[in-house]
Amino acid sequence: MTLSIHPVPGLPEIQPGNDLGALLADALTRAGLGPEPGDILVVTHKVVSKAEGAVARLEGDEEAAYRRLAREQAVEILRRRGDLIIARTRHGFICANAGVDRSNAAPGTAVLLPLDPDRSAHSLRLALRHLTGVDVPVVITDTFGRAWRRGLVDVAIGVSGLEAILDLRGTKDAQGRELKVTEVAVADEIAAAADLVMGKAAGIPAALIRGLETRRGEGRAADLVRPPGEDMFL
Amino acid sequence: MTLSIHPVPGLPEIQPGNDLGALLADALTRAGLGPEPGDILVVTHKVVSKAEGAVARLEGDEEAAYRRLAREQAVEILRRRGDLIIARTRHGFICANAGVDRSNAAPGTAVLLPLDPDRSAHSLRLALRHLTGVDVPVVITDTFGRAWRRGLVDVAIGVSGLEAILDLRGTKDAQGRELKVTEVAVADEIAAAADLVMGKAAGIPAALIRGLETRRGEGRAADLVRPPGEDMFL
Repeated sequence: MTLSIHPVPGLPEIQPGNDLGALLADALTRAGLGPEPGDILVVTHKVVSKAEGAVARLEGDEEAAYRRLAREQAVEILRRRGDLIIARTRHGFICANAGVDRSNAAPGTAVLLPLDPDRSAHSLRLALRHLTGVDVPVVITDTFGRAWRRGLVDVAIGVSGLEAILDLRGTKDAQGRELKVTEVAVADEIAAAADLVMGKAAGIPAALIRGLETRRGEGRAADLVRPPGEDMFL
Repeated sequence: MTLSIHPVPGLPEIQPGNDLGALLADALTRAGLGPEPGDILVVTHKVVSKAEGAVARLEGDEEAAYRRLAREQAVEILRRRGDLIIARTRHGFICANAGVDRSNAAPGTAVLLPLDPDRSAHSLRLALRHLTGVDVPVVITDTFGRAWRRGLVDVAIGVSGLEAILDLRGTKDAQGRELKVTEVAVADEIAAAADLVMGKAAGIPAALIRGLETRRGEGRAADLVRPPGEDMFL
């Protein structure tokens, strides 16, 4: 089973109210990637947020307005260092500046996380199914830092149409021994894989993954949020 | 730039002392994947550890011996819950049971992490260059849990021939604004992507990535280890 990951070029700069599903379907067609059964579409949240109007103007002192906005978007602030906060968002994600980001935002603005990224993924999936006749699972991504490891990786913040976590309990390894690794965060691995062709600077906000045999289903990125009480790593 | 990820089937069960480079070169050839310039080889550490003899017998009460071994492999124990420890290894990795694992290990044994996985990656790369005439970067992976997020993902624990962290400082986004996201853990994204075709149960311990334009260089997985003092997330 060979997997291929195709960047989806040709999306215009997204504005609030744009029909992102239609723009993506069009971009896929023009790239010769008219979706096939089994394909998975990965979209950076930046374009989803912009289409949904989850964008804020930074009035007055932009730096100060940006820091205020990040604090407003935080449900809990875990750490501060200088201007940076590590915060829990309303979705339960732990990330820098509560997901508020100025890169690839119009001057004087910052992009927020979508209000409900799982719902956004679901809406995009329904729109694509309507427009293309193919049911394509959708993963919406953001770029997060991690504890203990340097560098950032893309993770799934919205999922529709596939299991976010692959439950391998009861599966046997090649020696017939029950696997100890029981839960694979496949949606996060999909997000990381797609980032390899999207890049941060290339302006490619979507990728199509073809040939991945993973479990379809009604998983959500919310499944990837570990309730604070059950976190062994903290 | 389309990227493809090919599972590398046909490796035998690896024994201590096996010439893993030769076995991989042979498996690549038989799979029609004779490496091309630009390819990247991803190998789960399990086969590297086995070839290097980083395998321990579990004498007597296997469960007790396994737990003792995990404690011995830990430089620092961060958390305990029941039989599970979250530990820092000598390499600086934070992971369950200090990386000691019984899945895909022969009965009565456990597989340890390679002593120096960056060095292992480098040796494999040199062996493959000698055997195939192509300089193929190598990434050695393991499966780690994370803080705050459920499910496990594959990460890079050994790297040779590419930058483990892509430093984007000074790069501009599509609007010409300097990127705030400055360090992408590209080796971890490569590890996660490769896991999508290897799986935990499939017994496929290697994958070839073709078409990835990433910076070649002398990066190491050690670059991915964040010194405890500079960790904003803790």
